[in-house]
Amino acid sequence: MQRYFIPASGWQEGKVIITGEDAHHIKRVMRMTEDDEIICCTPDGRAALCQLEVVTEDDIKASIVRWLDEQKELPVNVTIVQGLPKGDKMELVIQKGTELGAHEFIPFAAERSIVKWDGKKAKKKIERYQKIAKEASEQSHRTQIPQVNDVHTLDQIASLQSYDWKLFAFEDEAKSSTYRSLKEVIPNLTEEQSVLIVIGPEGGLSEKEVDVLKTHEFLSVRLGPRILRSETAHAYILSSISYQLEELNQ
Amino acid sequence: MQRYFIPASGWQEGKVIITGEDAHHIKRVMRMTEDDEIICCTPDGRAALCQLEVVTEDDIKASIVRWLDEQKELPVNVTIVQGLPKGDKMELVIQKGTELGAHEFIPFAAERSIVKWDGKKAKKKIERYQKIAKEASEQSHRTQIPQVNDVHTLDQIASLQSYDWKLFAFEDEAKSSTYRSLKEVIPNLTEEQSVLIVIGPEGGLSEKEVDVLKTHEFLSVRLGPRILRSETAHAYILSSISYQLEELNQ
Repeated sequence: MQRYFIPASGWQEGKVIITGEDAHHIKRVMRMTEDDEIICCTPDGRAALCQLEVVTEDDIKASIVRWLDEQKELPVNVTIVQGLPKGDKMELVIQKGTELGAHEFIPFAAERSIVKWDGKKAKKKIERYQKIAKEASEQSHRTQIPQVNDVHTLDQIASLQSYDWKLFAFEDEAKSSTYRSLKEVIPNLTEEQSVLIVIGPEGGLSEKEVDVLKTHEFLSVRLGPRILRSETAHAYILSSISYQLEELNQ
Repeated sequence: MQRYFIPASGWQEGKVIITGEDAHHIKRVMRMTEDDEIICCTPDGRAALCQLEVVTEDDIKASIVRWLDEQKELPVNVTIVQGLPKGDKMELVIQKGTELGAHEFIPFAAERSIVKWDGKKAKKKIERYQKIAKEASEQSHRTQIPQVNDVHTLDQIASLQSYDWKLFAFEDEAKSSTYRSLKEVIPNLTEEQSVLIVIGPEGGLSEKEVDVLKTHEFLSVRLGPRILRSETAHAYILSSISYQLEELNQ
């Protein structure tokens, strides 16, 4: 069933007012009319089965049939800090990362990132990525849309405090005090904890970046024994966390 | 360190003879000379540290310094049966599936596959995909190259016998006798078992395809609670198996 994320302004006492692109999609693309049903999601992640009541030129009014008890979100909030990769790979990371349950994305201007974003270009890209995240949330039946943040520098990443787990993907010496195996991390995640993981661009994280992250108490983790491309890493960590928390722990 | 997969003919009593594209890569792209070191993999999955001895116009002769004890392959053989997806998505599945440890790929001409491959076109595509698999194995430091098979029909897939586990990704009723949660499957995998998993194209598997697979004792599994795109599913299952067998079980 079609799913739409409706902003706060659209929710009014048991009714939902749908406008703009979503209204256009319902009327012109899906060609729905009165009595047809859709799913509407609130900004805070609840989903309701709704029935269309009035379809006009300007907007659509729907009534809430019932609230749905959907458990479609990962029990922990995973923030993917992605070193800017080449070409359109970031779009794939945003899209598939959203399908796989990421809570938030932070594009990271890494030392070895070939691409650089200037102010105007960055703004346009972030808007585009946010749109991709919204579409991917709808298609994967999530009840929340991951936020796509502005590009961060190494110092900004290193200064992030409010995360229960701060990790970076790096093939480190297993004896290093800053190394943790995924076995020490993932089974110890508890509901509603927040996980931040830094993934380097093609060429990986530089020695300086690794030092700065370690100094700021980030722990290195290995994502299996094979080397993964920059744009594949997020899929490994998100799938592993989902498998542990949403399949094994059930 | 650069890694090359050398065919059987190249291995001769402690020496390795490298020819063709690999020799060209070593000489012209990497610009290596005598005494430089590389890693050479045998067809049966062993890896050796080698030192270049003689570099000529025609070929390169290297000596084996020592055999490496590399555990880079998934302990189980996972065959990804991928419903033909649109555009160049199959290339991404082959590339990332290889990074993530797949043993074999079988392209599947599903009922809802938009793309159809005729004989000539299929042959060229398979060759291209096999090349992508080889490059991805080298870059991910694997010791084996996954095989890319010819396109299979539903009946050919259904008739496959020699697998310990035959699965298909499908959001089935949890009470159905043919449904298994990943919790019942993945922790029960033992070393050297073979796993076959069928993934539908965009639009999913048809009712008829699901019936045929169930009749042939395929079990349906859910890949987390979110709907994944056709080209994302392989990453979820491979990552989950890797996480269980290569991280949790260690």
